[in-house]
Amino acid sequence: MTDEKGSRHFSEELQLLKQRLLEMGDLAASRIDRAMAGLIARDSLILGEVIQGDESVNDYQIEIDDRCFKLLALRQPMATDLRLIMATTRITSDLERVGDLAVNIAEAAARYIQNPQVKPLIDLPKMSELAQQMLRDALSSFVSGEVAMASDVLKRDDMLDDLKRQVFQDLLTYMLNNPELVAPALDLFLISRHLERVGDHATNIAEDIIFLVEGRDIRHQTSRFVG
Amino acid sequence: MTDEKGSRHFSEELQLLKQRLLEMGDLAASRIDRAMAGLIARDSLILGEVIQGDESVNDYQIEIDDRCFKLLALRQPMATDLRLIMATTRITSDLERVGDLAVNIAEAAARYIQNPQVKPLIDLPKMSELAQQMLRDALSSFVSGEVAMASDVLKRDDMLDDLKRQVFQDLLTYMLNNPELVAPALDLFLISRHLERVGDHATNIAEDIIFLVEGRDIRHQTSRFVG
Repeated sequence: MTDEKGSRHFSEELQLLKQRLLEMGDLAASRIDRAMAGLIARDSLILGEVIQGDESVNDYQIEIDDRCFKLLALRQPMATDLRLIMATTRITSDLERVGDLAVNIAEAAARYIQNPQVKPLIDLPKMSELAQQMLRDALSSFVSGEVAMASDVLKRDDMLDDLKRQVFQDLLTYMLNNPELVAPALDLFLISRHLERVGDHATNIAEDIIFLVEGRDIRHQTSRFVG
Repeated sequence: MTDEKGSRHFSEELQLLKQRLLEMGDLAASRIDRAMAGLIARDSLILGEVIQGDESVNDYQIEIDDRCFKLLALRQPMATDLRLIMATTRITSDLERVGDLAVNIAEAAARYIQNPQVKPLIDLPKMSELAQQMLRDALSSFVSGEVAMASDVLKRDDMLDDLKRQVFQDLLTYMLNNPELVAPALDLFLISRHLERVGDHATNIAEDIIFLVEGRDIRHQTSRFVG
């Protein structure tokens, strides 16, 4: 494969890889947004769309992973580029699961809206906004290489945990006082867990970026390397 | 790096990689087992150990990923070996999350045992056995290359889902009839979700193996490749 034969320069291929990953991330985040919009509007049509439409995120994963595989096989990249490609295949896994979580949220919401409303939805939309923003910021940081933004994503994960705990306490109170609300309250509880997991995936991505840029593994407190 | 200088043959290094991955999987599965043992025995000491001791699984991930990175950088493997190494870095992510799930189970169990028992634990231990076995079989299949075993793991995921649904229905009934049991029942519900996710990770691994051996991506129904 030579450049004269019309194949792209390696740096252009990496650029394209980042571009596709950003698009995949946008799509995954917007599916979370759509699931929450369906919940808030109590609109089973929107929720049905989210439940049906997971294919496009999955297609992105297959396409991007395949690009990575080909770049590794044909270009045999070294050091930073190799790390970039390995990080990319990890990030597609995270984004694919975010797509699955959108389906999970929509499924719980579709059950929920068949019952009377348990409580006004305040904290869950906040959780959703926060988790989506974390995801978008993690991916922006991947493209720009700005580690500060990735570090900021890690900090915001605590805010998400606090909101989740708040939701849990509220729902527990509702359930204790109104046993007939147990089933729908459980669905809101599940949705809060799903949104927390979206934040966990954003955190994974941010950690991968810090590893990529600084070459140090912050995924776990201790780090032991092969000698 | 030459063989004469005392470095291992490439095939030996791949063998070692598989060996370390098996060990990591055993450790992750045994931590799930230990968390469930603590729940069943209502033993806060055991649960405390599981909550504290996540480091060893994480260390394995860092070590194995580092081995993969070095093999890619120094050996520039092609085709099957390249796929094996890429699959390995995906599998360490799955196993690391199984380690996290053991902590999540132990945390929920530690809260749970502070309350009176909601119900005799029958389905949750079944779910745990099934999920652990799926994990071990997926990894055996990775080492042996037996795709049939990996396919069998995929089938058993439905059994796990059925058990989870059964647990949910039982707990819902308990909560509706005994509002004072809502909080502890929620913890059992959470544990059933965590065990289901252990099964999901076993499924991910099995899918990676089928991809590795057969070279086809069965992770999603549709597959679109880059031209």
